[in-house]
Order: sequence, then C-alpha cells, then structure tokens
Amino acid sequence: MKSWQIRHFGIEGLHPSDQPQPTSPAPGQALVKIRAVSLNYRDLLTMQGLYNPRQKLPLVPCSDGSGEVVEVGEGVTRVKVGDRVCAIFAQGWLSGRMTKEKARTTLGGPLQGMLREYAAFDAEGLVPIPEHLDFHQAACLPCAGVTAWNAIVEQGQVKAGDTVLVQGTGGVSMFAMQFARMQGARVIVLSSSDEKLAAVGAKEGINYLAVPDWEKRVREMTAGEGVDHIVEVGGAGTLQRSLKAIRIGGTISIIGQLSGNTTEVNLIPILMQNVRLQGVMVGSRETFEAMNRAITLHRLVPVVDRRVFDFLQVPEAFAHLGVGNHVGKVTISVGS
Amino acid sequence: MKSWQIRHFGIEGLHPSDQPQPTSPAPGQALVKIRAVSLNYRDLLTMQGLYNPRQKLPLVPCSDGSGEVVEVGEGVTRVKVGDRVCAIFAQGWLSGRMTKEKARTTLGGPLQGMLREYAAFDAEGLVPIPEHLDFHQAACLPCAGVTAWNAIVEQGQVKAGDTVLVQGTGGVSMFAMQFARMQGARVIVLSSSDEKLAAVGAKEGINYLAVPDWEKRVREMTAGEGVDHIVEVGGAGTLQRSLKAIRIGGTISIIGQLSGNTTEVNLIPILMQNVRLQGVMVGSRETFEAMNRAITLHRLVPVVDRRVFDFLQVPEAFAHLGVGNHVGKVTISVGS
Amino acid sequence: MKSWQIRHFGIEGLHPSDQPQPTSPAPGQALVKIRAVSLNYRDLLTMQGLYNPRQKLPLVPCSDGSGEVVEVGEGVTRVKVGDRVCAIFAQGWLSGRMTKEKARTTLGGPLQGMLREYAAFDAEGLVPIPEHLDFHQAACLPCAGVTAWNAIVEQGQVKAGDTVLVQGTGGVSMFAMQFARMQGARVIVLSSSDEKLAAVGAKEGINYLAVPDWEKRVREMTAGEGVDHIVEVGGAGTLQRSLKAIRIGGTISIIGQLSGNTTEVNLIPILMQNVRLQGVMVGSRETFEAMNRAITLHRLVPVVDRRVFDFLQVPEAFAHLGVGNHVGKVTISVGS
Amino acid sequence: MKSWQIRHFGIEGLHPSDQPQPTSPAPGQALVKIRAVSLNYRDLLTMQGLYNPRQKLPLVPCSDGSGEVVEVGEGVTRVKVGDRVCAIFAQGWLSGRMTKEKARTTLGGPLQGMLREYAAFDAEGLVPIPEHLDFHQAACLPCAGVTAWNAIVEQGQVKAGDTVLVQGTGGVSMFAMQFARMQGARVIVLSSSDEKLAAVGAKEGINYLAVPDWEKRVREMTAGEGVDHIVEVGGAGTLQRSLKAIRIGGTISIIGQLSGNTTEVNLIPILMQNVRLQGVMVGSRETFEAMNRAITLHRLVPVVDRRVFDFLQVPEAFAHLGVGNHVGKVTISVGS
Repeated sequence: MKSWQIRHFGIEGLHPSDQPQPTSPAPGQALVKIRAVSLNYRDLLTMQGLYNPRQKLPLVPCSDGSGEVVEVGEGVTRVKVGDRVCAIFAQGWLSGRMTKEKARTTLGGPLQGMLREYAAFDAEGLVPIPEHLDFHQAACLPCAGVTAWNAIVEQGQVKAGDTVLVQGTGGVSMFAMQFARMQGARVIVLSSSDEKLAAVGAKEGINYLAVPDWEKRVREMTAGEGVDHIVEVGGAGTLQRSLKAIRIGGTISIIGQLSGNTTEVNLIPILMQNVRLQGVMVGSRETFEAMNRAITLHRLVPVVDRRVFDFLQVPEAFAHLGVGNHVGKVTISVGS
Repeated sequence: MKSWQIRHFGIEGLHPSDQPQPTSPAPGQALVKIRAVSLNYRDLLTMQGLYNPRQKLPLVPCSDGSGEVVEVGEGVTRVKVGDRVCAIFAQGWLSGRMTKEKARTTLGGPLQGMLREYAAFDAEGLVPIPEHLDFHQAACLPCAGVTAWNAIVEQGQVKAGDTVLVQGTGGVSMFAMQFARMQGARVIVLSSSDEKLAAVGAKEGINYLAVPDWEKRVREMTAGEGVDHIVEVGGAGTLQRSLKAIRIGGTISIIGQLSGNTTEVNLIPILMQNVRLQGVMVGSRETFEAMNRAITLHRLVPVVDRRVFDFLQVPEAFAHLGVGNHVGKVTISVGS
Repeated sequence: MKSWQIRHFGIEGLHPSDQPQPTSPAPGQALVKIRAVSLNYRDLLTMQGLYNPRQKLPLVPCSDGSGEVVEVGEGVTRVKVGDRVCAIFAQGWLSGRMTKEKARTTLGGPLQGMLREYAAFDAEGLVPIPEHLDFHQAACLPCAGVTAWNAIVEQGQVKAGDTVLVQGTGGVSMFAMQFARMQGARVIVLSSSDEKLAAVGAKEGINYLAVPDWEKRVREMTAGEGVDHIVEVGGAGTLQRSLKAIRIGGTISIIGQLSGNTTEVNLIPILMQNVRLQGVMVGSRETFEAMNRAITLHRLVPVVDRRVFDFLQVPEAFAHLGVGNHVGKVTISVGS
Repeated sequence: MKSWQIRHFGIEGLHPSDQPQPTSPAPGQALVKIRAVSLNYRDLLTMQGLYNPRQKLPLVPCSDGSGEVVEVGEGVTRVKVGDRVCAIFAQGWLSGRMTKEKARTTLGGPLQGMLREYAAFDAEGLVPIPEHLDFHQAACLPCAGVTAWNAIVEQGQVKAGDTVLVQGTGGVSMFAMQFARMQGARVIVLSSSDEKLAAVGAKEGINYLAVPDWEKRVREMTAGEGVDHIVEVGGAGTLQRSLKAIRIGGTISIIGQLSGNTTEVNLIPILMQNVRLQGVMVGSRETFEAMNRAITLHRLVPVVDRRVFDFLQVPEAFAHLGVGNHVGKVTISVGS
C-alpha cells in the first residue's frame, strides 16, 4: 500500500513509500481504510524535527484522519465493517486526565500516523463519524476540533452572553468560533484579511493589518471591559496584546504549536487582572464524543480550506499550510 | 398611591389599598414608578398563607416587577432618573452564596412587594432592563428568569449537545427552554396540550395526557440513555418519572413552589444512577446581570401569556395563574 | 479451589463450592490469589435478591477484596508477579464518567465476585495496595473507601473549615470521617452508642438514641447554620432530619444500598435551602488512585471491625453485618 | 492622631504626619482604633511609585491591619464597640467576581491605608478576628492570608494527597504551606537557607542555593511526575523552572507583586503539559470568612517575623522587608 514517510527531518526528508498492507487485525483491533487526512502545524513541526527532536524515524506523519472499517479482529464490538470512523489523537487517552503514559500514544509521532492507505487501530481508539459529514470534514475533528471544544466548552466553560476572541482563520480558530456560537457566545475574529473575515461569516471581525493595536479595538467593542475568553494561537507576537484585551478574571487558552517558542511576557497583568492562562492539549475520547453529540445536533460542518490535495501532493499541501493563506483545515484525499 | 395588600391569608384577604406615595428617597435609595408586575406560584402560596405562615400582614404581594426611576437619593450612582429597571428578588443578595440573612430580603414577603404604583429600593437592588424589552417582558425576569438561568447555566452547566427536559409551559419552564437552546442544547418539552407545544415553538414535545408514561418516551428519544438535565417543576407527581427519564450522572433541578409538599421518593435511582437533585432558589444580582448579557446578545424575548391584566384585575390574574392554562408568564399593568 | 456461591436467593442459598482453579491468564490478564474480602450491604442485598432480582446465578458474591498477583498473561506491564493489589469495583470504569456499559462491569454481580481463592482480572482493573496496609485493611478500599472519597473529595469538594456529618460507624461513614478530616474539616458523628463514638475517636458525636431529634443538636453545634455536608447512609428514616440539619446551599451525599427503598420526602427544603442531593456510586480507577495517594501520604489505616472471619465463616460474617453492631468494615480471610 | 503618609514617591517620601482624629462615624460606618499593620511588597512598590504611578498623594500606605471598633454609626449591626476586626483588602469586594469597580476600592492605594491610629470603614468592609489570634497575627490575614487561601483552596482546589511547592518563606508562601497542609497536601518548601527551612517546620525543603536546578530535585521527589500545584512568587527568575517542575495538568498560581515585570517565558510547556497559570489577586470578604472558619477550627497561627516594629520604625520595617531576610510577615505596632 502507499504511504508517506519522514525518513530524515526537513521537508526534503518526506518521501512516498510502499509498505506491506496490514491484514487480519489482532484481537481487539480494527483495520481502517483511510480516506482523508487533515494537516496540523504539529505535523509541519514534526517533519522539521522541531516538535520532538528525539522522534524515531522513519515515521508516517499526521495525526488526523478518517476512514472506513474494513475488517475487525476477535472480540471487537465497538465498531463493525463499514463504519465510518476517526482515530483519536492520543490512542490511549479514553477519558479522565492526561498522563505521561497517555501522552506517549499520539498518532503522527511517536506512533505511526495517518498518511497511508490502511492502518490497524485498537477499536477503543476509534469514534464514529457524525452522519452528515464527509471524510474530509471528519478528518478535521481529532486534533483541531477536539482542541477547540476542550478550550471553549470543557475547560473554558464559555456560556451564553460571553464574548470570545479567536485569532486568525485556521482550523482550531474556526472550530472555536463555531463552538463558541453554539454555546451562545458573541465571537470576535481577528484576521489579516477582510476577505477571510467575510469568507468565514464573522459577524464581528478586526483586520489586524489595518488595526495593529487590535487590543484597543477589542476593549472598545466590549465597553472597556475586555473579552471573557481568548483562544490564543499566535504565541510570542500576540500574547502581550491578548493580556490587554482580556477582562478581569478572563481566560486565555494557549493553543497550537507555536514557531517562536519563547516570548517576553509581562506577568503583572496575569496577576493584577486575575487572568487564567490555560494550556490546552487536545482531549480524550470522551471529550471527542461529547463534541460529536453537539456537532450532530447542530449539523455543524467544519471549515475546510477550498484547496483539497491529492495523496501525491502531500508536499504541496504542507507548503500550503506553511504559507498560511488557508481558511479552515487543509485536507488530503487518501485512496480512491 | 394605589396598591394591593394581603390583609389576611386567603384569596379574599387581598384588597386594593391607598397608601401614601413614597417621596424623597433616602441616601443610597432610588424611587421607582412601577410599570408592570409578573406573578409566580410563590405569590399565590404567600397569599394563601402556605408559603410562610408566619409572614407579617398586611403585605404588598409579588416579587417581580419593572419600572422607571423617578428620583434618586444622595450618593446614588448606580441608576439615574429615567432608567428602566427591575428590582432583584432578594434585595440583599448581590453576589456569592445565599445566606440566611440574604434569604430574609426577598420582595413580596417578608419585604413589601411590587403591586403598588411606587416603591423605594436601595440602588444596589436594581438592575437595568435590556433595551429591547418592554416593561411587561422585563417584569418576568427577576424570579422566573433568574431561576431558569441558574438551573440551566450556572448550577446546571448545560452545554451544546446536551438534552434538557422542561415540564409544562409556565414561566420558569419557558425560560429554561430558551436558555437551554442558547447554550446549544436539545430541548424536549412536556405539556398537557399539543396546542401549547405548538404555541411555544417546541421542536420536540410530549403530550403527557396522550403519553402518561412519558419517561419511556423520553428514553426512546434519547437512544435509551435518558436526558442530561431535567427542570422539575411538578414535584410529587412527576419526580418519580423524572428519576426514570434522567441519564446516569444527570441533574434534576428542583424548582418552584410545589403545592403537594411531600412525596414518595425512591432514593435508589438517585444513588444507583449517580443522579444529582439540585434545589434552585433564584439567584444573585450577579447572576441576573449575566443573564441579561445573554438576553441582550440574543435579543431574547420572554414568553408572556396572551392575557395581560389591569391593575384592578389582580384577583382575576391570580385566578388565571391558579387554573394553569397560561403559557409563559402572567403579567399585570401598573400605573398608566 | 474453594469459593462461595449464591445458588438461589436468600441466606440459605449461599454455599461453599469447589471450582477449577484458573490458570494461565489470557493476554492482558493477571491471576490473583485472593487474601481478604470485605463485605458491603450491597452484597447482603444481592444475596437476598433485593439488589438485582435479574442477577444470573450461581454467583460468587462480594465486590471488595485484595490479593497477590501470582501469574500474568502476555503483554501485561501494569502489574507483576508478587504485587499486592485490589480489584476495582467496576472493572471497566477506568476514568471519566460512569456509563451504562461501565455499570455492567461490577464485581459480585453481574460479574463473579471475590469470595474465592483465585481470580483472573484484566490487568487494567487492578490497583496496587498502599505499602503500609495489610490485606484486610486493603480489602476495605474498593467500594467503601472509593465511595467515601468520591462523596467527600471529588463530588463533595469538602474543604478546610467545613463541617461534615457522618451517620453511624459503618465502613463508608468511617472512611468519610477520615477523609473529611484529611481535608481539614470538622466532623460530627452520629451513632447509637457512646461506646462506638469513643471507639472510633469521634471528637464530636451525637448519640441518636439519647438525642432522637439530632437535627436540632446539629444546628446548635453549628451556630444555627447547619452543616455543610452530610453523608447520608440511613435512607428513609433519616433523610427528613438531614434536610433540617443541612445549611443553605449544602450537599447531602446519598450513599449505600438502603433497605427501605421509598421514603416520604418533603422537597420544599431542597428547593428553599438550595440543597444538593448527590447520588454517589463508588468511582473510577482514577478516583481510586487519587485516594491511594492520600492514604499513602497520611498513612491512613481503614477502620476494620474487631471481628475478623475465616473463609468458612462467611454466613456468620454476613449475619454479623446484618445485625449492625460492627464498627468499620467486616472482613473475611481467604486462603492461607 | 499619628499616621504615616507617602507625600512623594520614593522611600524618602514617607513621612510621619499628624491628622485630625476621625470621630462620629457616618451611618453604616464603624470607627476602628488600629492596633497592628503588616507589610506587603505591594506597599513597598506603592511607596516607590512602581505599583500605580498615577496614585494620588499624599497617601496613608498599607492595606493590611487589625484593630478594635471604638464607635459605630447609625444602623450598624455587623459589628459593635469592642469587636476586634480586620479591614478587608478591597473594601467593595464582598463576594462574587472581581470587577473594575471593586478593584478600585483597595486600601493603601487608591484608598487611604492602615498606617494611622484611627480609621473609619463601612461596616461591611470589616471581618471579626478569630479569637485565638492577637492583633499582630490578625494583621497578616487580609492580603497575604486571603491570597494564599484563594490560591490553594478556592481557585486551586488542592486536595489530600496532592503535592504543593511553595517558594520562599515570605507571608503568602507560609500561609500557602499552612493551608495546603490543612487540605491534606504534601508541601515542599523552596528556600535560600536551611535555617529558614528548619525555622518554618518544613518537612521537605530544597535549598535553592545548594540546588540551583531545583526543578530536577522536585521531579525526583515526585517520582518524575512533577508537583500538582506551585505557588509562584518569584516571577521572572523562577517561572521557567516552575514550568519544568509542574506535572501534566498542574496549576501554577501567579502571586505577588514582582519587581522584574517582564520575563522570557517558553509557552510550549504550558501548552504541551496542559498547565494552568492562574493569576490570584487576593479575594472577597466571603473568601476571607471561609478562611477564618478554617483558621479558627485548626487554631492556625500565622507566621509572624521575629522582628516586630514600633510605629515610629516604619521606614526600618520597610527596609527589613526589602532586604528579604524575614520569615513570614513583617508587622508594625500601632497605638499603645
């Protein structure tokens, strides 16, 4: 079967590969024909060796994908042949709190990822896809969707009447916008482009190229109070401004694999404003399932970037992600 | 000025009355010209002497009303003349947890209530009315609105994708339906009448006259799981069924002044299903203000019963409430 | 190997039995030589057919026990031969929220229980015993210990300075007393006997035979406020009093398998006092492990009844539990 | 009466002053004869103009003190003559969430502070002192005590079996150590001196001069997991290490007025470890009262530095605080 492998770090280390097709899943396992994959910055960093320099190679990259169960091992009752499924991000994190052990079971590194035609999973590591979603839409859920749900709903407890600021129009931000609205919140979207703001249907947006000191605009838009919640994906560049845009007692969810690792942070506002900075690292299967209930009820459709890539175009897909002109999730078709 | 007074317990103890009009509010107080009042079962029980038999009489009944500030005392900055306001249910409960002391500051007993043309309040006990609401709509908020908000949002933490069951089409139930939808939940409405279900726009309803064992229908509608949250207003009659309609780990909010005080309850399901029964007694001013932010954002309009009563028709209004054919809140006009 | 079996419901249906000794655990499983078992009321009710009348027989009773790993199957890394372990109450409940599926994995019904010399478990269903505890002490943990921890710490969030009322000196109540103290709370113990109150080291106790209206005494002892938390094990008889002994906004944890199933409950205090009734059904493995960290840190020793029974005395042990004169947990030795 | 005033920023701007003694408290107010004051870094920064450069002068410094009610205004029932009381840090923050308005009512800037012989307060802004504490001990509570309680108990929800790291032996850290123990936690104390570690009764301590990479020692002491909670008072210098000493999903409470305002922070660990950074700004009166219940129950005595200063020695007291050799709180006697 066809797959992609990182053989050495760096974009040129990514190669198409032929691997034996897995067959006859072991007891408790299910064999999945993968149909679509979505990219995360984490995948880009992994490929560059920046995410985990000690990652063993070769590695099939990418954590997020969707597919169809084609065979199940002995004793499997959770899924059956023909089921459309996603694999969960951390295969061992079914519920409860994250632990070191569970953190070592993430797909696309350290475990082999989704950029291949077939893969076998423990049946416990699979969740059914909401019926109204196609494979590309579903492939957006495992990392970006669950992270945004965790930030907004479980850890964030955003409620009706709250105001949420999302930064940019990438995958996590778009899910955060959608989930915040579902919870009844007002959403302000920050973007570099009026076109993108229009494209994603932002009712209230700020073009930060036109308004570089967007934190002031945010305060104006909130009667001087600041917003209740910020989904911070920018890191170094934006956190200082976010700390000025948040209200007393508000929460900033720290999301995403940020290229500029360290940043000057003034801790005084955190202290004086009683602010919470909450790191969010995806979520458990239980969280995924809660999200799916909401997605199904609201027939929510993830924002997928217009440009969809073929399996042979994986390097182009990564380049497209790297440039940052996408809206929503960048996806790749797998198999026929 | 005109007012109504309970002079002795029982419906015939309710009398129109002339009282001196309050003037020149004390420091920190505001004088409010009352414009509308809404009725709660609590007011009916108070009149009958069933709510608090030791209530001192005469008493101006009713906790919930709205009006306009016509004069402010020295040092008042919270409101100004011309402001449209509601009085909060427990005048001393501004935030934090309920205490015995705060519980003694509720309007319509033990404190004098809203069925009068003018009343002076501590300015701290007033909240501005969302702009898009008229006085009758606003008069529904202090007890029924805040109770439902507390049950669904603050104590209940209902989230997108949850399923909520509301019982009947009374004031609290209608607010609970609206707030649960705001939070992204699916709502099932229980009613004695298909007409009412249609009238309130219930997407999913059960006519309990047609389906007396509605708890079974509820389980069918939830794939056998039961609902996440029930707003229980029926008391004796319905709690046993609610305990069969709730999912493992779900919450039943106990609301409203129930006529049949004691009831046979089988505690085993509470235990075995890990169920929470949560008493809900209105909420603080901080809770009121959080609700108002959501109401304003969503331009939510409270469900007001079609039949609106004049100030002279107060006995008819109570009778109308007692019969139980209303939908939403029963309101009374005060003043011109 | 020796075991006990319920062959038909009723005390006379309990029989000693010879069963083939399990060998060669399957992949992922561990074989445990059981060393001690503790009894719960649930076991008594199960034997009488009152807990789950549809339970399939024959059944090895009892959920709670401890032992030593004597052999492990392929792929097991969680435990090794020689480890001292407890089996968790619901074998499938590792973390997160209880579900129907997880609820079907409880030991001592529907799954075969602990009153046997050897049993094989999925390694995921075992937890290590704190070092300072012997097998009898450890056998008290799975149901009574975890239930009390859940009631006091996880669901109850009892904190320093709170006041907690525990009822009687049975297993759950004694753990609740110990955990509440660990969390810095003041504990009042209700008992039928001054001797028991002295025996368990209650700093503050009420003999409810001497003081039948103990709810009044409780209010006196709390400056008229009532207690913050009650661990309710009495059911029918005591809940009405508990509702008068709890403070506004307090929590009553509903615990234990109560013989008198239904009870007259006046819901008004729940509503008016903003009280929470929280059903508590044991807890997950993650909860068990959190409890064990605290037990280890504080070198806490469970309260074990003075009378310890041999494996041949199981009927006597159940009779002893039924009489109710025990203090702490009733335990049985298994094997040599 | 005697007082101290900041007339211009800088240590030399602090002057003793004679002011008219307040008399005849207004309605709702109480006149307090102040008996002791404790110092916080915030007071030092305020004096230097670093805390709020726009603070109006002259200002009586210091937020924390205790005294005796000597006269009450009309309508005051909360306190009476002879009561021993503390003034709460933010006079307008009685309960609920912090707001901008409440934040403007803090003593020692913007409101006049405690370094004077008499002061009048709104009776709502006073809390009774636990009986077993003297005035110096009580003067430690309003800022340092309430901050630590909020960090450990209310926002932190530290529970039995958790491990907490406190940094240094200053006022907040010592309260945090005491409260964490009350809640049943294991506490590790970081200090520059073995003597201090011994003096404060630290069961487990790390001398960071001897062990500069203390984060590694912390991980060793926690089986490689890291601690559950860190009370971070060091700011710039230590946060990077704290991020390596915290467990996955742990909480770092950001406390104290830090001299080095901005710091290089690597956000990746926050994200990857799912860490929460929680700013803590003192707490409400309701929080203060909850703390007092615990302090009373446990007869906890705040750690007061051995060196106690006279009212005339205020500059020396500030210098002593600045040097940082104190253990616990630095206090000053006021009046006779």
